[in-house]
Amino acid sequence: MAEIVAKHPDRFAAGVATLAMNNIDSALRETDRAINDLGLKGVLVYTNVNGKPLDLPEFMPLYEKMANYDLPIWIHPRRDETVADYITESKSKYRIHGALGWPYETQVAMARLVCSGVLEKYPGLKFITHHCGGGVPFLAERIRGWTRVRGDAERDADLSKEPIEYFRMFYNDTAVNGSTPALMCGYAFSKAEHILFGTDMPFGGEQGEQFVRETVRAIDEMAIPDSEKKMIFEDNARRLLRLSS
Amino acid sequence: MAEIVAKHPDRFAAGVATLAMNNIDSALRETDRAINDLGLKGVLVYTNVNGKPLDLPEFMPLYEKMANYDLPIWIHPRRDETVADYITESKSKYRIHGALGWPYETQVAMARLVCSGVLEKYPGLKFITHHCGGGVPFLAERIRGWTRVRGDAERDADLSKEPIEYFRMFYNDTAVNGSTPALMCGYAFSKAEHILFGTDMPFGGEQGEQFVRETVRAIDEMAIPDSEKKMIFEDNARRLLRLSS
Repeated sequence: MAEIVAKHPDRFAAGVATLAMNNIDSALRETDRAINDLGLKGVLVYTNVNGKPLDLPEFMPLYEKMANYDLPIWIHPRRDETVADYITESKSKYRIHGALGWPYETQVAMARLVCSGVLEKYPGLKFITHHCGGGVPFLAERIRGWTRVRGDAERDADLSKEPIEYFRMFYNDTAVNGSTPALMCGYAFSKAEHILFGTDMPFGGEQGEQFVRETVRAIDEMAIPDSEKKMIFEDNARRLLRLSS
Repeated sequence: MAEIVAKHPDRFAAGVATLAMNNIDSALRETDRAINDLGLKGVLVYTNVNGKPLDLPEFMPLYEKMANYDLPIWIHPRRDETVADYITESKSKYRIHGALGWPYETQVAMARLVCSGVLEKYPGLKFITHHCGGGVPFLAERIRGWTRVRGDAERDADLSKEPIEYFRMFYNDTAVNGSTPALMCGYAFSKAEHILFGTDMPFGGEQGEQFVRETVRAIDEMAIPDSEKKMIFEDNARRLLRLSS
């Protein structure tokens, strides 16, 4: 990845390292190598690590390291058909695991990082989600009510602010397959500063070109100032990835 | 419920019967009693029946019956903390089962009714979802791509139209805790004809008055014609429940 980025600076602004999180010590070393030696601009993890949530103590050293580097952590959903949608079934049907299960994985990962206090502990840490937060912007007011701090330690978050305020700290990409209403939901939730251009390429038709085209159109059709569209297309990424302009 | 509706016609336009679906024969008899004897205007089921999906053959007689009555079926989410969000855990934490799990249940129930062909088989059947489809409007373009008919019978739907067209047949209520952007997503997805006023009362502050007030405000703030707001507030319910005006 680093080689391709170095070879085609006119096409690739930056690259990111995918971490194998099953061995956190190796993942930490790989993070240092990726950023210091290879010049990559962040790391990518999945919404679960062999079925484990991202808020376990063993993963905290990565969050501390990335907060210190001041570079983002991408969170990509991961779920296959073996995760059944009903307790009476052994697998998910009709690709529901991907269509709906992936956004749900993203929502839950966000909730766990919020409610366990990871974002309170590392206020400078920048998580980037795909699929515009997987629907969290749509459910924002519902989440606000359900996650309110109520003092029941077993069930509730122990945070100094309302949980929903930490949900707003995530950066969310625009990969919603060309839906302007979904992007406007994301915009209302987190403002333009927290939305990043993303397309899900190479998924979609024409080796991903279709998604690129539809995503650009969907952003163009957002009822927001051009200056904010520029933030989404370019400025936010430059800032987060600390790219020279 | 029927008694209260009969006693206070100035406050309650209609009532609905909640069905115990663990015994379908009893549920069918109760449906007849509720509609013919008690004058109720539909039935309510949950997103799963003791962990079973709503598209099992055993539930088809209810769908046929309600299609014949030309009255709606409400689908309310059901999930408790014992449904874990990670395969390495035994329960859901931080109320995630409700905040996010309930909308997910709704999404999955809709997907199963679509992909199994229930809505193709009963095109006149009217399902009403809570929480504005639980996020389906936000994910619509993603769902469209993932559920496309591809001829792999094991994984895909076998339908005469694109699955997303059946998703648009659902009626979705406005109980999104006062989020106008979420309602605009729902509007873009299914048009005003398929949105029904709903508030989640008696949940919310002030025994539900807070949710009523915030939902009315959220609808008032939708950038749509007043005639369509009237459809959401009143006309659609009169039509679906076949109320005399």
